[in-house]
Amino acid sequence: MKAYQIDRFDGIDGWSLREREAPQPGPNEVVLRVRACALNYRDLLILRGRYPVPATPGVVALSDGAGEVAAVGAGVTRLAVGDRVACSYFPRWLDGRLTPELAMEQFGCTRDGMLAEYVLADEQAAVKIPPHLSYEEGATLPCAAVTAWSSLTGPRPVLPGETLLTIGTGGVALFALQFAQLFGVRVIALTSSEPKADLLRSLGADEVVNYQAQPDWEGAVRQLTRGRGVDHVVETGGVRTLAKSLACSAADGHVALVATLGAGGSIDARQLASMGMVHRVFVGSRTSFEAMNRAIQVHALRPVVDRVFPFMKAMEALLHFEARHHVGKVVIAGA
Amino acid sequence: MKAYQIDRFDGIDGWSLREREAPQPGPNEVVLRVRACALNYRDLLILRGRYPVPATPGVVALSDGAGEVAAVGAGVTRLAVGDRVACSYFPRWLDGRLTPELAMEQFGCTRDGMLAEYVLADEQAAVKIPPHLSYEEGATLPCAAVTAWSSLTGPRPVLPGETLLTIGTGGVALFALQFAQLFGVRVIALTSSEPKADLLRSLGADEVVNYQAQPDWEGAVRQLTRGRGVDHVVETGGVRTLAKSLACSAADGHVALVATLGAGGSIDARQLASMGMVHRVFVGSRTSFEAMNRAIQVHALRPVVDRVFPFMKAMEALLHFEARHHVGKVVIAGA
Amino acid sequence: MKAYQIDRFDGIDGWSLREREAPQPGPNEVVLRVRACALNYRDLLILRGRYPVPATPGVVALSDGAGEVAAVGAGVTRLAVGDRVACSYFPRWLDGRLTPELAMEQFGCTRDGMLAEYVLADEQAAVKIPPHLSYEEGATLPCAAVTAWSSLTGPRPVLPGETLLTIGTGGVALFALQFAQLFGVRVIALTSSEPKADLLRSLGADEVVNYQAQPDWEGAVRQLTRGRGVDHVVETGGVRTLAKSLACSAADGHVALVATLGAGGSIDARQLASMGMVHRVFVGSRTSFEAMNRAIQVHALRPVVDRVFPFMKAMEALLHFEARHHVGKVVIAGA
Amino acid sequence: MKAYQIDRFDGIDGWSLREREAPQPGPNEVVLRVRACALNYRDLLILRGRYPVPATPGVVALSDGAGEVAAVGAGVTRLAVGDRVACSYFPRWLDGRLTPELAMEQFGCTRDGMLAEYVLADEQAAVKIPPHLSYEEGATLPCAAVTAWSSLTGPRPVLPGETLLTIGTGGVALFALQFAQLFGVRVIALTSSEPKADLLRSLGADEVVNYQAQPDWEGAVRQLTRGRGVDHVVETGGVRTLAKSLACSAADGHVALVATLGAGGSIDARQLASMGMVHRVFVGSRTSFEAMNRAIQVHALRPVVDRVFPFMKAMEALLHFEARHHVGKVVIAGA
Repeated sequence: MKAYQIDRFDGIDGWSLREREAPQPGPNEVVLRVRACALNYRDLLILRGRYPVPATPGVVALSDGAGEVAAVGAGVTRLAVGDRVACSYFPRWLDGRLTPELAMEQFGCTRDGMLAEYVLADEQAAVKIPPHLSYEEGATLPCAAVTAWSSLTGPRPVLPGETLLTIGTGGVALFALQFAQLFGVRVIALTSSEPKADLLRSLGADEVVNYQAQPDWEGAVRQLTRGRGVDHVVETGGVRTLAKSLACSAADGHVALVATLGAGGSIDARQLASMGMVHRVFVGSRTSFEAMNRAIQVHALRPVVDRVFPFMKAMEALLHFEARHHVGKVVIAGA
Repeated sequence: MKAYQIDRFDGIDGWSLREREAPQPGPNEVVLRVRACALNYRDLLILRGRYPVPATPGVVALSDGAGEVAAVGAGVTRLAVGDRVACSYFPRWLDGRLTPELAMEQFGCTRDGMLAEYVLADEQAAVKIPPHLSYEEGATLPCAAVTAWSSLTGPRPVLPGETLLTIGTGGVALFALQFAQLFGVRVIALTSSEPKADLLRSLGADEVVNYQAQPDWEGAVRQLTRGRGVDHVVETGGVRTLAKSLACSAADGHVALVATLGAGGSIDARQLASMGMVHRVFVGSRTSFEAMNRAIQVHALRPVVDRVFPFMKAMEALLHFEARHHVGKVVIAGA
Repeated sequence: MKAYQIDRFDGIDGWSLREREAPQPGPNEVVLRVRACALNYRDLLILRGRYPVPATPGVVALSDGAGEVAAVGAGVTRLAVGDRVACSYFPRWLDGRLTPELAMEQFGCTRDGMLAEYVLADEQAAVKIPPHLSYEEGATLPCAAVTAWSSLTGPRPVLPGETLLTIGTGGVALFALQFAQLFGVRVIALTSSEPKADLLRSLGADEVVNYQAQPDWEGAVRQLTRGRGVDHVVETGGVRTLAKSLACSAADGHVALVATLGAGGSIDARQLASMGMVHRVFVGSRTSFEAMNRAIQVHALRPVVDRVFPFMKAMEALLHFEARHHVGKVVIAGA
Repeated sequence: MKAYQIDRFDGIDGWSLREREAPQPGPNEVVLRVRACALNYRDLLILRGRYPVPATPGVVALSDGAGEVAAVGAGVTRLAVGDRVACSYFPRWLDGRLTPELAMEQFGCTRDGMLAEYVLADEQAAVKIPPHLSYEEGATLPCAAVTAWSSLTGPRPVLPGETLLTIGTGGVALFALQFAQLFGVRVIALTSSEPKADLLRSLGADEVVNYQAQPDWEGAVRQLTRGRGVDHVVETGGVRTLAKSLACSAADGHVALVATLGAGGSIDARQLASMGMVHRVFVGSRTSFEAMNRAIQVHALRPVVDRVFPFMKAMEALLHFEARHHVGKVVIAGA
């Protein structure tokens, strides 16, 4: 089968297209025929050798993908051939809390990922995608959507009528915006341009703040809450925005800190004492993925797909993603 | 001023219209000019002498009302004359858990209630009503709406995509149906007639089950969840429905038991072990009331008012309410 | 190897000692040399054909056991030969909530249990027992101890200074009494005789109520809390005690309902509205088991073992257990 | 009556002893005869004009005190003359969450505090102190003890067997150490000298790390948890220790950030993503105070009093406190 495997971890050209043996399912395993993959910031970090979990040389790239079950191993009961599924980011994290042990196993990092014709997975790692979604849409869910869902559902869950700040137009931010509406939450979306602002409004943002036009955007955000501050932030900007996110949080505000922050930057420790709670979000469990899928299905919600690249142009997809020109998820079709 | 006071607690004719001294605000108190009241099942229980908290002879009736601030006492800072407000069911329960001590103070029970031209309240007990609501609508909130809100928000909060069972077309059930939609929750509504079923559908119920047509309705409800059972029940039917509510709950289901149950009836203890959690709901704190109002305001939600009776026809309102012909809240206009 | 397998499900003599093939570990599996087993009420229910999950004919009996790892299959990383372990009651419930799917797999029910020389387990199901415990002590943990731990830790966790009611001298009750002291909780223990009362006091019970001497024991319990009622009940008496447990609960009290209740009996639905929350406890996840073990180890806590029977006298152990003469856990030594 | 009132907010000599009118109780108010006061770091911040809530010129100093009820106003039901009480730090925060509105009212800041012969309080603000405590001991509870209690009880409550890091020998740290033992929690205590280390051990610390001897103490702490990191930190060191506290937290660790941090210092934003949750603690509600008192009473726990100064030597007490030579609480006896 064809697969993009990562041989070097020193830059985004570290992967290459190879011919490999297609996997066979062992007991309790399934093999998926991958129909679409999606890119995440963590994939760049892995290629650059900067991801906290050390990747295995020669590993097939990408955590996110969707496809159909092509073969099932002995004892498989959860799935049947033909089922339309995606895989959980941490294939062994089924429910409850993430442990360091569970965090060490990841597709496209410590085990072969999705950018291939076929991928092997434990049946426990696979999740049926909502029937109304295409494979391209289903492929966007494992990392970004589950991260957004986890940010909104605990330990301080959002409530209808509360206000959420989202940052940018990446995958997590757009899913947070879309999910927030299912929860009845008012969204203030931060972005850098008017075209993006229009898109955010069309997706349901109640307010949009342009941080290019307003470098002191934390004041603008606070004003839009009548001085109270926002109740929740899905903090995807990391070191570039965290200090300001804290500054525009309510006295009892909650910041969901998406875990993969970039380099550099610091905050004043006192800022942490000016709001209620910062909690780190690292994707989510399979149970969270399934709960999210129920909500997506009931509400016929559709992910925002920026662009779909052919499998043979995966490198173009990666360059497009790295250039940060995308809005929503960058998808690569199956081989 | 005119007021309906309760002199006997042996039936629904125990109140009578009287002329009384209008109250004056002491320090930290406000006087409201009542513009509308609403009826609740607990008001019947009080009139019949069957309410768990013993009422004070001569007390002005009703817990629920809305009006404008007519006078403020010394030291009042939360409110100003002219503010449009309702009062919290338990005027001293501000936040956190209900204690027996806090539960002993109630409008229309141990202190003068709303069915009068004026009512005296601690400024801490008053809550501004959402600006888009009329007084008639605002008057419906303190008991039924807050009860519904509390049922959905803890200790096992609802999630988008989950399923909720509501029972009947009383105030709590309709608010639960309306709020559920703000939370992205799918609603199965139980009722007794086709006209009511139509109304429930028009208010957003995803499914309606007619328990007259289907006496074994727990099976029908379970079927509508593909055998899984409902995730949540707002149990307002009490002894008449509880056994069946438990029977159609999911293995990890949650029943919010609205506290004022009628007489008689029993359940098999084993039924409790077939689902996850029953928790008793007793209205809610002022903080819950305020959080709910934020949601009502952001979503421009409007309460369902069955009918508005003139102040001088309060007795007709009560008879109408007692006959259970209403759908939504029965309101009495201010004097 | 020797094993007691269950061929009939119509009474406690439905098992018989057989010679069977010893299991071999597949990938990610381990084989334990069982050194001790413990009996639980659910084992009686299974033998009588009254357990909610249908057992597999010919299955080896018992959920609870401890032993050493005798062999490991390919890919095993959590365990090594020689490790001293017990197995989780629900071998696939690792963390989070119990689902019906997870509940269907149980040792001594749907898969071979512990009353044998060897048992096969997924490596994920095994938990190291605290080093200070003997195998006889370790064998008592999987069902009763984890049930007690789950009862105290959620969804309304106990707090130091609160009061807990335990019922009887069975395994769950004694573990609840012992754990309660780690949490700083005051315990009122209910029992039927003075010798048992002495034992409960020696184990740390702050108060003991004899329900034989005081048939209206709910009043006595309430009095011991100065009228407030107990904050928590670990309800192991089921239909025989539930109505009274509710009656002596605080207004905001919490009842952990241990799931395997016996037949018959009913409660008035209104009783449920007189206290705060009933939640069903069904043992607990592997993560709860591990958290409990940390606490047992840090505090050098020792389980109460009633008596240890030789493997060849397992039937005597069962009769002793069925006759309810035991205090704490009834153990059967390994073959 | 005699009282120390604060006239200037530019240094610790800003208060002076004055003769003032003794307060009289209004409706729902009580007057306490103060028998002892205790000092907190926030009192220094107020005197220096650096406290986030602006203090009222001429206000009587100190938040913490205990005494007996000397007079009750009309309508008082919770208390009677002679009751031994302390007052809640935020007199109007009864339960639930702290709001900015509630935070604005504080003894010794925006309303007259405890360093006087008499103090006026709303009856709702007063809490009975445990009977086994002296007034000197009871006076230590309102700020430091409640802060420690809140740190351990939510939103991620401690569990028996978990590990907690405390920092130093101030009031909050010592209460956290003492309370942790009621919760069955293992404590690693950080300190600067061997005599203090001995004291910490005598109070029950399982391990003590001397940060003078080991400047890279985060490594030592991590080693004491076998590399896992601590589950909880009660972070009282602020900017001087926060970066290291984060560094020795478990992957899912929880830091309770005591709110009044000193000036200067910064942390790398990525450190926040290396552990689970930081939540800000700002003392606690009256309900938390009462729950804590129940625990203190049941366990006959005694606060650590460093030294008791006479009322007329309050300034010496303050200098002693400022010099940081104390271990536990610095108390000033009543006038």
